[in-house]
Amino acid sequence: MEEEFKELVNFFIKGDSNFYSDISVDNVIFGYHQKELRILLLRNPNFYSWMLPGGYVKKEETVEEAAARLATQRTGLENLFLKQFKVFSAPGRNKDFVMSSAALSEMVGQSIDPNWVFRQIVSIGFYTLIEFSKAKIRGSFLAEEAKWWSINDLPTLLFDHSEIVKEALAALRLHISHFPIGLELLPNKFTLPEIRTLYETIVGKEMDDRNFTRKLMSLGIIARTSETKPVKGRGHRPPVLYTFNKKEYRKALSDGISVL
Amino acid sequence: MEEEFKELVNFFIKGDSNFYSDISVDNVIFGYHQKELRILLLRNPNFYSWMLPGGYVKKEETVEEAAARLATQRTGLENLFLKQFKVFSAPGRNKDFVMSSAALSEMVGQSIDPNWVFRQIVSIGFYTLIEFSKAKIRGSFLAEEAKWWSINDLPTLLFDHSEIVKEALAALRLHISHFPIGLELLPNKFTLPEIRTLYETIVGKEMDDRNFTRKLMSLGIIARTSETKPVKGRGHRPPVLYTFNKKEYRKALSDGISVL
Repeated sequence: MEEEFKELVNFFIKGDSNFYSDISVDNVIFGYHQKELRILLLRNPNFYSWMLPGGYVKKEETVEEAAARLATQRTGLENLFLKQFKVFSAPGRNKDFVMSSAALSEMVGQSIDPNWVFRQIVSIGFYTLIEFSKAKIRGSFLAEEAKWWSINDLPTLLFDHSEIVKEALAALRLHISHFPIGLELLPNKFTLPEIRTLYETIVGKEMDDRNFTRKLMSLGIIARTSETKPVKGRGHRPPVLYTFNKKEYRKALSDGISVL
Repeated sequence: MEEEFKELVNFFIKGDSNFYSDISVDNVIFGYHQKELRILLLRNPNFYSWMLPGGYVKKEETVEEAAARLATQRTGLENLFLKQFKVFSAPGRNKDFVMSSAALSEMVGQSIDPNWVFRQIVSIGFYTLIEFSKAKIRGSFLAEEAKWWSINDLPTLLFDHSEIVKEALAALRLHISHFPIGLELLPNKFTLPEIRTLYETIVGKEMDDRNFTRKLMSLGIIARTSETKPVKGRGHRPPVLYTFNKKEYRKALSDGISVL
């Protein structure tokens, strides 16, 4: 947090000597857990409505590295797969600053130039998908409150962040119909309903049970184990457990597939 | 050309009052014609090696509008579908300027600040696919020579432009396996070998004839007409002509499909 604060002050004061002046990144961090898809939002109760976690880009790093650095700061998770999906550049997109330069100067403890800090910038959108129970979320210096929100029940967002979320969800849905997901989101061994629920939750609609399973099996991405999952109560046949074939999974990640 | 030149001088002299200082766009303009896939490259024989057509972004426009404006300047074609595919931001990516600031100052007829013009920038990659016989290509003020190059035989490119082309081709190939193409690239009525050749040229490999046709027909994107294409010579059965079902085509463009 100390390091983050120093970097932010550095940006506000030193401007474009270390950072790009016109570029930010915004991270749409999707969290999946037990049939629910959420996103991580931040807020400064005194100034900002809810917003996506994001930040500025250093000239010594790529935009991917900037997105990864900022996502790690908010989730505590390293080595996240962050996917660049779109650049947002509508003129005036970030003009509704709600914090005055005086208030911002006071927060950072130094006088800031409003023409520098409150300028029009272009934002590069990234998304990632994690198991949200694994993350230790925390707010930033400027927006200290961090919270997971269900994608079906989002609050009003700052700037064009609702648009960014909408585009991220479309990109995620397109992505999972061409590349496998689940390796980091499901337990090592899982049932067919569990993986189907994962897909259904992200796609946002029900899928044909038999077609879906047949497709996954024929692609060789999942394999049947000899184990079953214990169930409570009598009369229920314990469901068979499946596991990912990691070699085929990785191959599908690089070659692409057609799952849906 | 006059307008373009004024804008360029405006950027070099006035800097970030009208333009973003850290952002450019690069357009990978694919041209398809008779079994060949090419890209449009520019060069300034005195200074630059071959490069992608691109330019700077005005604060009053979106990056999509900037890419469209610049693509129209190079091809004479309006309303091109330009697809944003990736942001390129490796530190030092554009450091190998080959033109001195003195030479550039002489070209634009005014003294320029090298620290401004020769700064590190991030480039947003767009691609488009056109029928290349429809374009009237022309170079820019800084790179007057314009030429179509086969993607199988590209020259050495400036900066990281080879990387940009590689990523554009991957994005195009992924795109055509999920969305239809051909409406602007094929004649109004075409044979099955013609549309298959289009796909094969872009994908870069042969495809299964019967599966491909069955897929296109079952999606309802193409429809059989009652006409045949005249052929020369006896003993050849004239091939049936097909046409796009525009309603289904547009639906597939918005919903996505799985063609390959």
